Amino acid sequence: MKNRDERRPPHPNRRETPGKGPRGGGGGGGSSIWLYGIHAVSAALANPERRARRLVATTEAAKALPPTKVPVEAMERADIDRLLAPGSVHQGVALLVEPLPATTIEDIIRTADMAPSALVLVLDQVTDPHNVGAILRSAAAFGALAVVAPDRHAPDETGTLAKSASGALERMPLVRVTNVVRALEDLKKVGFWTAGLAADAPKTLAEAKLSGKVVLVLGAEGEGMRRLTREHCDHLVRLPMCGEMESLNVSNAAAVALYEMRRQG
Amino acid sequence: MKNRDERRPPHPNRRETPGKGPRGGGGGGGSSIWLYGIHAVSAALANPERRARRLVATTEAAKALPPTKVPVEAMERADIDRLLAPGSVHQGVALLVEPLPATTIEDIIRTADMAPSALVLVLDQVTDPHNVGAILRSAAAFGALAVVAPDRHAPDETGTLAKSASGALERMPLVRVTNVVRALEDLKKVGFWTAGLAADAPKTLAEAKLSGKVVLVLGAEGEGMRRLTREHCDHLVRLPMCGEMESLNVSNAAAVALYEMRRQG
Repeated sequence: MKNRDERRPPHPNRRETPGKGPRGGGGGGGSSIWLYGIHAVSAALANPERRARRLVATTEAAKALPPTKVPVEAMERADIDRLLAPGSVHQGVALLVEPLPATTIEDIIRTADMAPSALVLVLDQVTDPHNVGAILRSAAAFGALAVVAPDRHAPDETGTLAKSASGALERMPLVRVTNVVRALEDLKKVGFWTAGLAADAPKTLAEAKLSGKVVLVLGAEGEGMRRLTREHCDHLVRLPMCGEMESLNVSNAAAVALYEMRRQG
Repeated sequence: MKNRDERRPPHPNRRETPGKGPRGGGGGGGSSIWLYGIHAVSAALANPERRARRLVATTEAAKALPPTKVPVEAMERADIDRLLAPGSVHQGVALLVEPLPATTIEDIIRTADMAPSALVLVLDQVTDPHNVGAILRSAAAFGALAVVAPDRHAPDETGTLAKSASGALERMPLVRVTNVVRALEDLKKVGFWTAGLAADAPKTLAEAKLSGKVVLVLGAEGEGMRRLTREHCDHLVRLPMCGEMESLNVSNAAAVALYEMRRQG
């Protein structure tokens, strides 16, 4: 069993951003994001690379937070509601942060270069922030190196994603790319095998006995991977299912695939 | 690999309810439920035991539905919005139905009695309808006999659950119980082994090599199973994780556990 930290970029989110300190100068800034929920906020406060601007919490929720140098602004639940997108389940706590410095495919390649094996998850057309968040969490749990996803992130989406990731957004690099196929090609050039999950694949993931450096590619529920993405997979594999009508939620499929890779590895 | 149908109750949802035909008499009835989303509605229309009262759809969405005897009421998207709880992602289609006749623990026991092996999932404190829905879907995909969950179901929750189940609510018995411990005891009496997922368990699920008739018990995220539930488990097992900070979304944990049981079986 590999130690997770050995398989990850040494400083996934630690590239220096020039300028502003955690709460220094610069005012509101359009790029700030509200994170919310006990786990997401606690993990962000524990991440030295995460720059926090404002921490608001109900008196009750503040007790559940870890010790932090960021001052807590006491706030009623209803006032926190108004800071966030409607329906955000904030559990009485929210943290205004700057986005983490971006991790790139090159960062991932550099780290993987030193490892005998590595697992990267590529999401093709998976955009629902609840699913991406849950997938980040599973990727962290099963020791993946990074999750690669299309580049689209509205601040509200990032809050939802962080909540669903339950802290894993601070620990698992999420690499945003504009072109999934190019990312696959970049990874293949440095020795990764690419395996796409497809319901019509001849072999199961377990039967394919993949090892070494592997990229698992997941497409959207229903439609699956786009044709071009599929064509850039060295292997097509499926998860065993009972009956043709059955399928899994995409984050559930990702969790099972990550588990299977780890089990084999 | 067992045939799924052999492992399920022969007529999980087919007990006769006296009286009303699918669209006959009786008016609105407080117990009717709006199902929504293409997959959930299509599966309900395909289920001969599901009694439908009204089918509404946009002209566009109606084309994606299977042939049905239920007349389609053409409706604008915004009008469908108003029929459902705010934020329901209905994809232009909704179906007013009566609840399925209840499947009971006794039904499950009767079916399992004839089978050499069977897998039942028990949810202790897992109440979020998105999670329960995704779990039903995974249970169907990996050939479980039934999912047992606490008895609480508001109509809105059922719509959300059915949407997340993506049709599996029509195929996978969801047994509602008021007392989870009693359900475990009933299953143990007829030869089921009970295994609870717990992060602090000494063995992994794979190491425990469970076979025959097995009940998998999942608790709430964070807190896990309640103490009494835990005490009624013959085994405590965990899923392998990288690092103590990591955990899975409960539906992801269920999917992995179901996959592992099926892989061994």
